[in-house]
Amino acid sequence: MGRGVFITLEGADGCGKSTQAALVAEALAASGREVVRLREPGGTPISEKVRALLLDPANAEMVPECELLLYEASRAQLTRQVIEPAVARGAVVLCDRYYDSTYAYQAGGRELPDDLVNAANALGSCGAVPDRTLVFDLEPAVALARATAGGADRLEAEGLAFQERVRAAYLRLAASEPDRVRVVDASGEKDEVLARALDALGDLL
Amino acid sequence: MGRGVFITLEGADGCGKSTQAALVAEALAASGREVVRLREPGGTPISEKVRALLLDPANAEMVPECELLLYEASRAQLTRQVIEPAVARGAVVLCDRYYDSTYAYQAGGRELPDDLVNAANALGSCGAVPDRTLVFDLEPAVALARATAGGADRLEAEGLAFQERVRAAYLRLAASEPDRVRVVDASGEKDEVLARALDALGDLL
Ligand SMILES: Nc1ncnc2c1ncn2[C@@H]1O[C@H](COP(=O)(O)OP(=O)(O)OP(=O)(O)O)[C@@H](O)[C@H]1O
Ligand SMILES: Nc1ncnc2c1ncn2[C@@H]1O[C@H](COP(=O)(O)OP(=O)(O)OP(=O)(O)O)[C@@H](O)[C@H]1O
Ligand SMILES: [Mg+2]
Ligand SMILES: [Mg+2]
Repeated sequence: MGRGVFITLEGADGCGKSTQAALVAEALAASGREVVRLREPGGTPISEKVRALLLDPANAEMVPECELLLYEASRAQLTRQVIEPAVARGAVVLCDRYYDSTYAYQAGGRELPDDLVNAANALGSCGAVPDRTLVFDLEPAVALARATAGGADRLEAEGLAFQERVRAAYLRLAASEPDRVRVVDASGEKDEVLARALDALGDLL
Repeated sequence: MGRGVFITLEGADGCGKSTQAALVAEALAASGREVVRLREPGGTPISEKVRALLLDPANAEMVPECELLLYEASRAQLTRQVIEPAVARGAVVLCDRYYDSTYAYQAGGRELPDDLVNAANALGSCGAVPDRTLVFDLEPAVALARATAGGADRLEAEGLAFQERVRAAYLRLAASEPDRVRVVDASGEKDEVLARALDALGDLL
């Protein structure tokens, strides 16, 4: 069996990543491929413990550099322990957020220096690069409306200006790595978005 | 009040860092300065939680990149939350291990690439650089004998060849940054070593 495929799903809060991850996984599994669905941060026992530190409100005094490095630590464990072995045995790995989220939120949203975030991402990914990254793109107002229907979280509370910076950062990535990063229009019905997503993966599967 | 002083104590396992940290702190406090004693990893509530993840035997499957990034995350929190404010208010900060330990153990002992370890250290230290670093230097056999008198830990179990690589890495650092990094002969009685340590700090205090 040949090498598998590593796909990441990206986009601002509430754009529909998790919804599409489930639908894409279903479509691929129907074609008989092994599909491994993952979410970041998390996906291994150690990564989940790091996730718990990141999400615990008791850790409110966490500084941005510590937060960034914890995301990367969780990612390194997931990459070495799960992603690399799965791709090596021929599976399709579908990861709901990966290092482009760190770029979009920390460099874009929080305005940390690009160099610093890129250096951290290089360490956390252990050199892994997705074969394809889908950026689900949606007007922030629509995305926020979808997301807050479920209950707003910390990031969503940052407001529209923050979400616009995140969106712009994703679009910069798509412009600079056009072969890897594809923008998928995330407006409209779930099935319409799924059709666009599968289309943007067609050449790989 | 002027800027304080940031001093780090380094050296292979059992060379006497913690012993000398206590003695140096005592000597400085006697001269009326505020002394802040810290140990790595740890020193803040968040850093201690990360330390617990690093030391928990349940996390034996942790990959080297994850371990490295967790050390750096703990360091970033300590640096921003404790070291920088203490130095800013004029204190003497004495830190038992800092980023040179990461270099000596990960690049030296474990033979990870220098570039990778240096990039991680740059992130974890948030750009902080010690004003002076004392490397307590001792024959590994003597250091191991001292340390194992107390009970060997994981690193000590790596053996003499590993400790020799750690020692050599520390000596490389001292050669490349002679103003910051000073080698202190750690053989002999505790008071003799203390006198050498204070001598190597004299110009700063
Ligand atoms: N095409 C769609 N039309 C309308 N609602 C949608 C659509 N896709 C997803 N939703 C709904 O929008 C909300 C957010 O979707 P989802 O959780 O998939 O987004 P997400 O990108 O994973 O968000 P987060 O960044 O918070 O994880 C959910 O309630 C979901 O059911
Ligand atoms: N000059 C000395 N002569 C003899 N024994 C010493 C001397 N200095 C320290 N020791 C003893 O050696 C042991 C190791 O010392 P210490 O814990 O200070 O080393 P360390 O460098 O902090 O070790 P670790 O890397 O394990 O933290 C202790 O039992 C200590 O009492
Ligand atoms: Mg989601
Ligand atoms: Mg010690």
